[in-house]
Amino acid sequence: MAVKKLLHGSAAETEAAFYDALNRADLDSLMALWAEEEDITCIHPGAPRLVGHAAIRASWAAIFERGGIRIRPVQLHTTHNLMTAVHSVIEEIQRRQGDEHEMHILCTNVYVNTPLGWRIVTHHASIAAGLAPTGPAPAMLH
Amino acid sequence: MAVKKLLHGSAAETEAAFYDALNRADLDSLMALWAEEEDITCIHPGAPRLVGHAAIRASWAAIFERGGIRIRPVQLHTTHNLMTAVHSVIEEIQRRQGDEHEMHILCTNVYVNTPLGWRIVTHHASIAAGLAPTGPAPAMLH
Repeated sequence: MAVKKLLHGSAAETEAAFYDALNRADLDSLMALWAEEEDITCIHPGAPRLVGHAAIRASWAAIFERGGIRIRPVQLHTTHNLMTAVHSVIEEIQRRQGDEHEMHILCTNVYVNTPLGWRIVTHHASIAAGLAPTGPAPAMLH
Repeated sequence: MAVKKLLHGSAAETEAAFYDALNRADLDSLMALWAEEEDITCIHPGAPRLVGHAAIRASWAAIFERGGIRIRPVQLHTTHNLMTAVHSVIEEIQRRQGDEHEMHILCTNVYVNTPLGWRIVTHHASIAAGLAPTGPAPAMLH
């Protein structure tokens, strides 16, 4: 119950709910985490920029047709103020057979503090060459 | 002189100075546009995440050894509040001979309003398949 009560009380909680929704392929829960404005943006790895709820919802619906995405966000790096939080995340994804190249996914998630809680305004994911660096996360200076 | 006076008075002006510095391969001017905090992040297309002034400066120094980068930011899409501005930019780059694939670069630039003006805290650039979409920029709703 404590988790429920605190949900979206911080950008970190919204982010946790985001990756939880991805794991469960829960489209409604996922879309409820975005700011209500129509200028939200989403970039999937290698894909064009999407703007607005309809386009972004359709893209996740297509992805979820293949099931949930098992992502573990690691090495979070954040900078934030009272209104906005910028999270830089390295995403650990479950490797599939046939993957030819070592790679990891880098993600910039931006959250804004709205009257309804912390909501996503930007999700920008891209592929980086090489394995994700190991070791402790960088210190959070803010 | 008016331009000089207004420099960094808005995130848009800092962004204009950023792409101008890239064009001129002006490392000092480029690095002066970043926030002074050490938790700034920079992701070049396909490359690992960089954190902090030293690593970011070294990366641009290596890029500039091949000269400036002729980038024209187009189709800017922004969301902002008093403290933070998030710019989603499609970068038009001059094509080189031998480029095999049609592609464009998508970029998320995050600026914060500091006592010294609007400064960059995050630059995340990645490659998208296909040519950049044409047509007018999406409306700025904020």
